[in-house]
Amino acid sequence: MRAGPPLRTPFGVLHDGPRPLVLPNAWDVASARAFVSAGFPAVATTSLGVCAARGLVDGARAGRDGVLALAAALSDLPCPVSVDLEDGYAADPAEVASLVGSLGVAGINLEDSTDGALVPAAALAAKVAAVKARCPDVFVNARVDTHWLGGPGPLDDTLDRALAYVDAGADGVFVPGPLTDAQIAALAAAVIVPLNVLPYPNRSVDDLAALGVRRVSTGSLPYRAALRAAVDAARAVRDGSALPPAVPYADVQALAVPPGTWSLEG
Amino acid sequence: MRAGPPLRTPFGVLHDGPRPLVLPNAWDVASARAFVSAGFPAVATTSLGVCAARGLVDGARAGRDGVLALAAALSDLPCPVSVDLEDGYAADPAEVASLVGSLGVAGINLEDSTDGALVPAAALAAKVAAVKARCPDVFVNARVDTHWLGGPGPLDDTLDRALAYVDAGADGVFVPGPLTDAQIAALAAAVIVPLNVLPYPNRSVDDLAALGVRRVSTGSLPYRAALRAAVDAARAVRDGSALPPAVPYADVQALAVPPGTWSLEG
Repeated sequence: MRAGPPLRTPFGVLHDGPRPLVLPNAWDVASARAFVSAGFPAVATTSLGVCAARGLVDGARAGRDGVLALAAALSDLPCPVSVDLEDGYAADPAEVASLVGSLGVAGINLEDSTDGALVPAAALAAKVAAVKARCPDVFVNARVDTHWLGGPGPLDDTLDRALAYVDAGADGVFVPGPLTDAQIAALAAAVIVPLNVLPYPNRSVDDLAALGVRRVSTGSLPYRAALRAAVDAARAVRDGSALPPAVPYADVQALAVPPGTWSLEG
Repeated sequence: MRAGPPLRTPFGVLHDGPRPLVLPNAWDVASARAFVSAGFPAVATTSLGVCAARGLVDGARAGRDGVLALAAALSDLPCPVSVDLEDGYAADPAEVASLVGSLGVAGINLEDSTDGALVPAAALAAKVAAVKARCPDVFVNARVDTHWLGGPGPLDDTLDRALAYVDAGADGVFVPGPLTDAQIAALAAAVIVPLNVLPYPNRSVDDLAALGVRRVSTGSLPYRAALRAAVDAARAVRDGSALPPAVPYADVQALAVPPGTWSLEG
């Protein structure tokens, strides 16, 4: 089924375009503003980048303070912002809902694993329901971590979990990790809400759209590409090879002025 | 003159090798640890990166908290760390010295401009003297901002400032911005301490060494290359082009474990 309930928020309608929404994941203020400046209509955050920037492991609750600080710092972006909240940083659904209510963001991701271990589907379903009851306008993207943590495998548990989260009120379902074309198509057909996946090296966004995908998040790729480019830049200086392309100094400084003054190019 | 006073700290002796010290500038914990992992013998910080990450302008005093937080977060690196302290975040030399004493770092940069305007040489000289009196083992790199702010031009004021900072006890002199070969050679010959410059597109580290340079800092280049790579990565996903090279997810996670467990490769 491709038709879902009307998604009336500005962020929600971005999932209803002719192509999937490509959502870039920022780790700091400059990267978020650079994505906006490059024409992306919405920006998300990457918990890996936020955690690594502070020397912390991703997927654990230690990242909470950094994630919340980034969410606050992105509140003046001139576009919808969706925050990767990992598992909501609490087991209590009411606590998670209260946290989401305090953020003022357009969307969130909530995942069904804590410290690298799957939790029962009922645990995430209860959080999704609590958040939607308290913040009906926040786009709740429920992340199913079966394949992320378990690698390739059957779809049964994944599908059960996805449907449980949709029943609980999730506005989207996100399944990172290895999936076959047939699995992606089966998931997209089974859930009434937009299906979100990560980029795959051998599938373009158009390929994924043909399978029914409606959101492609970059995930940690931009941060990981950034880290690679930073080390390569230092190596280039050391080894005497050509210096890499880089945003000019003045353009980085320009990202520190209020967002209203940027040019938004495609 | 190439022979200076003996630099007896582990960081100081890195300036006395057969090639100039190439010092990569980190903006967060992961980038600093990635530089160490890539074999760099010491790591510095970039105030542009630290400020931009927080949506702040570089060269102003607003970056203080972020710079100090990063300095603290890098205290467990298994190598010397030098922190870009901009103008020391105070006009009072005693205040700057007290701040440096609290950091526990191997080196600092102090610059002779505030909010994009040069200050009198006596102001930075007094800070250098105060820091060296209080923290004799901290390598104080005095940055002359004449060419950074003024572009190409005569060397007179630059040279006068450099000599004033050396007289005040600076362990190194850093002149960013456009300089001719003859100007670099003249500066290196005039100051008894190591001369530090930024990378130039058309001069290798060996070229700079031949002119007398003893430290090449990458400055903001790695952060600016990182930002460019992040935006390019998101564009590649959106536009269906090949995904860029990136540090694998597991390797980023590995940077979150204590530094003693990394492999250090060249």
